[in-house]
Amino acid sequence: MQSNGHIEQAIGLLRQKGLAQAGKKADRVTEQGAICSYIHSGGRVGVLIEINCETDFVARNEEFQTFAREIALHIAGSVPSPQYVRKEDAPTDVANEICLMEMPFIKDPSVTIGDMVTQKIAKMGENIVIRRFTRYQLGEA
Amino acid sequence: MQSNGHIEQAIGLLRQKGLAQAGKKADRVTEQGAICSYIHSGGRVGVLIEINCETDFVARNEEFQTFAREIALHIAGSVPSPQYVRKEDAPTDVANEICLMEMPFIKDPSVTIGDMVTQKIAKMGENIVIRRFTRYQLGEA
Repeated sequence: MQSNGHIEQAIGLLRQKGLAQAGKKADRVTEQGAICSYIHSGGRVGVLIEINCETDFVARNEEFQTFAREIALHIAGSVPSPQYVRKEDAPTDVANEICLMEMPFIKDPSVTIGDMVTQKIAKMGENIVIRRFTRYQLGEA
Repeated sequence: MQSNGHIEQAIGLLRQKGLAQAGKKADRVTEQGAICSYIHSGGRVGVLIEINCETDFVARNEEFQTFAREIALHIAGSVPSPQYVRKEDAPTDVANEICLMEMPFIKDPSVTIGDMVTQKIAKMGENIVIRRFTRYQLGEA
């Protein structure tokens, strides 16, 4: 049992180190990435998203592509719909619940979209930025 | 040969009648339709488009869906990129060449996108409106 404790401690330290390194990567330039779309409800909702990373190598990686699709799915399906990527992009009187990075992920509300980005930076070793998105709902004003 | 002439004349009259009826349908309310996307160049360009029609029946029709996809493909691939749907949406000093409805279709420059919409209204018997689109290019300012 003592060795299990050591393993858990080691995992915890590695995780902290990974996330700390993710924080350091957050200022690095991201000029590559992917434009990804998600069409929902038989064509009644659609999302277009741009997610950036540092290299074309990561951009073409299947894990990165899947990540982009998951974020697009979240934007399509979540209620309320996100209106801004970051709270810094929103007017000061806007609730955090419509800022994408602050929202609990629709498929796993224990993490926010911002947490998921940080985890993906730690895992893939490159800065990753959700740059912009557009969400269309059929017939909305 | 005389009967061929009659047939051509009849086709011409039917075509005129269809387009005239298309003109009459252009004011009818369009609250149905489809959100459609097109991703180009391995994820470096993406388009999201909303095209409206009058009934869910036409919206689900494969011909309508294919039409929406063709317009999205045009927006993704054409140079210059369209910035507005209609010239009425654009500032008065903007060139018609960046207004989608005025542009020659990328796959058949003998017709404009506006012509294609009119023809589709005549063929499908419902008003059809390109409502809005968004085009993302990776890393653009």
